[in-house]
Amino acid sequence: MKDVQNLKDNRGIKINEVGISDLRIPLFIKSGRVRQQVIAYIKMGVDLFANIKGIHMSRFIEIAEKVKNSEISDGMITKILKEIKNRLNVNYSRVEMSFTYFLTKKTPVSMKTCTVSYECKIIGESGEDNTRWNYFEIIVPVSTLCPCSKEISKYGAHNQRAEVLLKIKTKHYLKISEIIKKIENESSGELFSILKRVDEKHVTEKMYNNPKFVEDVVRGIASWVMNDKRITDFIVTCKSYESVHTHNAYAIIINEEYKC
Amino acid sequence: MKDVQNLKDNRGIKINEVGISDLRIPLFIKSGRVRQQVIAYIKMGVDLFANIKGIHMSRFIEIAEKVKNSEISDGMITKILKEIKNRLNVNYSRVEMSFTYFLTKKTPVSMKTCTVSYECKIIGESGEDNTRWNYFEIIVPVSTLCPCSKEISKYGAHNQRAEVLLKIKTKHYLKISEIIKKIENESSGELFSILKRVDEKHVTEKMYNNPKFVEDVVRGIASWVMNDKRITDFIVTCKSYESVHTHNAYAIIINEEYKC
Amino acid sequence: MKDVQNLKDNRGIKINEVGISDLRIPLFIKSGRVRQQVIAYIKMGVDLFANIKGIHMSRFIEIAEKVKNSEISDGMITKILKEIKNRLNVNYSRVEMSFTYFLTKKTPVSMKTCTVSYECKIIGESGEDNTRWNYFEIIVPVSTLCPCSKEISKYGAHNQRAEVLLKIKTKHYLKISEIIKKIENESSGELFSILKRVDEKHVTEKMYNNPKFVEDVVRGIASWVMNDKRITDFIVTCKSYESVHTHNAYAIIINEEYKC
Amino acid sequence: MKDVQNLKDNRGIKINEVGISDLRIPLFIKSGRVRQQVIAYIKMGVDLFANIKGIHMSRFIEIAEKVKNSEISDGMITKILKEIKNRLNVNYSRVEMSFTYFLTKKTPVSMKTCTVSYECKIIGESGEDNTRWNYFEIIVPVSTLCPCSKEISKYGAHNQRAEVLLKIKTKHYLKISEIIKKIENESSGELFSILKRVDEKHVTEKMYNNPKFVEDVVRGIASWVMNDKRITDFIVTCKSYESVHTHNAYAIIINEEYKC
Repeated sequence: MKDVQNLKDNRGIKINEVGISDLRIPLFIKSGRVRQQVIAYIKMGVDLFANIKGIHMSRFIEIAEKVKNSEISDGMITKILKEIKNRLNVNYSRVEMSFTYFLTKKTPVSMKTCTVSYECKIIGESGEDNTRWNYFEIIVPVSTLCPCSKEISKYGAHNQRAEVLLKIKTKHYLKISEIIKKIENESSGELFSILKRVDEKHVTEKMYNNPKFVEDVVRGIASWVMNDKRITDFIVTCKSYESVHTHNAYAIIINEEYKC
Repeated sequence: MKDVQNLKDNRGIKINEVGISDLRIPLFIKSGRVRQQVIAYIKMGVDLFANIKGIHMSRFIEIAEKVKNSEISDGMITKILKEIKNRLNVNYSRVEMSFTYFLTKKTPVSMKTCTVSYECKIIGESGEDNTRWNYFEIIVPVSTLCPCSKEISKYGAHNQRAEVLLKIKTKHYLKISEIIKKIENESSGELFSILKRVDEKHVTEKMYNNPKFVEDVVRGIASWVMNDKRITDFIVTCKSYESVHTHNAYAIIINEEYKC
Repeated sequence: MKDVQNLKDNRGIKINEVGISDLRIPLFIKSGRVRQQVIAYIKMGVDLFANIKGIHMSRFIEIAEKVKNSEISDGMITKILKEIKNRLNVNYSRVEMSFTYFLTKKTPVSMKTCTVSYECKIIGESGEDNTRWNYFEIIVPVSTLCPCSKEISKYGAHNQRAEVLLKIKTKHYLKISEIIKKIENESSGELFSILKRVDEKHVTEKMYNNPKFVEDVVRGIASWVMNDKRITDFIVTCKSYESVHTHNAYAIIINEEYKC
Repeated sequence: MKDVQNLKDNRGIKINEVGISDLRIPLFIKSGRVRQQVIAYIKMGVDLFANIKGIHMSRFIEIAEKVKNSEISDGMITKILKEIKNRLNVNYSRVEMSFTYFLTKKTPVSMKTCTVSYECKIIGESGEDNTRWNYFEIIVPVSTLCPCSKEISKYGAHNQRAEVLLKIKTKHYLKISEIIKKIENESSGELFSILKRVDEKHVTEKMYNNPKFVEDVVRGIASWVMNDKRITDFIVTCKSYESVHTHNAYAIIINEEYKC
């Protein structure tokens, strides 16, 4: 059978990234001593030399089939990146894995166990000479209570769910639970799935004592990230689903040389 | 050219609804004396006799092209429903138009003019003997402040954006602005796009004085709808994006013989 | 602490369904002899008597925490429905679990193993006297090749990805893999994640030999469902993302007394 | 009333962008001699000095209210950017307007008039010394027919809807209809809303004669963009909703110094 992909292309244009997206496979991830199950969205890509017509996309899926049900780790990602390079004969390979991560928490007063979920993305890249880059993205839902509304009102203050999106570049992947804690600490309050009445009282009062604009949230997180030697690049966004408006408020801090 | 759609099908199964969806066309709608522009998503469908293979879908789009830039009205929908029946030679026709509706409001204290948007859907159906049914759906964003959180906490109360979805069946289409007002009145507070500081104070305190569970919101709206003779069927849902949780709270009241 | 939810409401309006949605928990599901992991979206609801103000929503999450990491089964759903009734003291309980299901397939010619994912929802309801209803929903992506385009063109035929949505009511849950096979058989072709060149040739030619309108797809599926004694109610929709249009085509067959 | 936003922040961290998003307002846009209506999503942002706590967000909405129902143009965007700077007292201002654009086409054989819609985003930025940057983004749905599937199969070839996303930086905004034409020319076929049988035959055969990988589509578009002096920066992506797979294929070409 003719190999159409291997034909020549004479436009002389290199393709930066070409591959497959939105593939789903079951995986695992270690959190502490416990393994948790993960249903990942996979994106895999490579660069393509200027003179070749196309890539053989089924090879990405064959590689994905081989790692099915295995555990996400630095070593596993390195292995995928290498195998992509070998099978597709390219200089650059990239893999993205998006999944839901579960954190087990204790409610603040009743001390009940509850589970909270966070959307994460792990990205690995391998360039020429097998240089490796690691990226990690997470969306952490938090609450924000408006400092202005609190200050000017006789009682109450508008508050709402907000979402922090943090993207970082690191040499080694950090512990996900550590990142979540750092982000939640800079909001008006972390979220729980269970809140008994004693907890709800605690959470409500804590939020009122801890007002934050979206500006405050991203500054707080940037203060940490900028001083964490393990993180070499970042962007942080907070988007607040204002309870008194139909539109949203947002703030962004970007590392000066951001290239994530 | 062969007319494949007109071939026979011998499985003896009538199709309840077949047509096209996700078509976009520009339209207008009258609100009071002012015409506002509308970019509608259109869905058009018909039933199909058990013995015919398929329908000619391009005819729906030809009909849509003819009403492009015209004004949504009861008469316009009747005309579309009739033309669908004529061109496709069927017993049942249906059209759905989804669009953003703008309401101009005054902010509560500073009396500034601001514009708030609402997602609406107008549905018309025409059955045998040209019986007509009209349905209307609207999503109204509001705020809810938790009565329990307020009662048990020394200060503050968690509040958040919530969405009311109301679907009604009527003989004639009601004024959209009237429906919005009725729904907003049953929430902890209506939403504005502009809030100067004096307005924010007002809105914050009003919300605190007006706590509502999702249960309260749907009951308040059902109280109105059940006693409004113009409305012959309904379902109302309130979904609250809880500021202290990652999950949402919802409540639904359905008319006993609901068939919307 | 005051129990605000237990206050009286004097509007005399029963709430049909009130609860929580969009909660995520890890679960398992048995497929044949193999257990597969599942990250489920959970919705849990109850009815509410006309004279009571609200429900205690944290109890739903406590029940969800207890079933975390367990295996979805008829018995497990019955247990959840009973526990909801006991803890919330109501007549009606409902649970919905939405998740991705994986089916392992052999590619048609090269016989490679590949994994395809399907979005499923399992719904259980328990009414007065503990009457049980089971509902199951699935979205099966397939391909459709246009019979008209094939017939009138000298070569080629437009084809595209389409989605079948089937909702059924059953006494006992059916095998998911059986439902998928039945649906895929009524399309122009089932989808694979891996296709080597010999497979791609096979799939392309099979699709060309097997043209289907959305009308054909829903009729084929309805033919099966209507004659399957295990299924007591259903609705089936096929939506085709037409490769030559920006809008989509759809067809729906609904069981006469549909109440899903 | 206290001005909380004007308080000092002592963390010494500049915020790159802070503002409001997801606001909807009605606008107009000129296409040729005809004005078309637009329902825009608006995002407006500014930078924030390191020593100030927050911005006054209601001022963005007041500016949006003033341009409501006006016509999108280079001049109008310049005016918005200036007014944001004046009212919020900052060095950097940014506005994004996302909207649906309609193009009127003639079907290829029957020469019927039909309307096709495209999602666009216009972005304006104003920096220190009032330097201006203009960005434009568009999503153009097209069809792709697989060159490999055509070559290896006795008859037929899999084809599908695909989406091209082009982001460009320009000195002056280009004509939208020109950009659409250029992109559609690099695909297997442009899309229409109406296709009578003679048109469907034409479109099917043209697509079969014009096979394209996602790699071909982005290379074709990049060939144009790289040689168009009016465009100073760009990124182009093509994502193909493969009719024989559940996953998608994508390709990206990025300008070397891409900073969009």
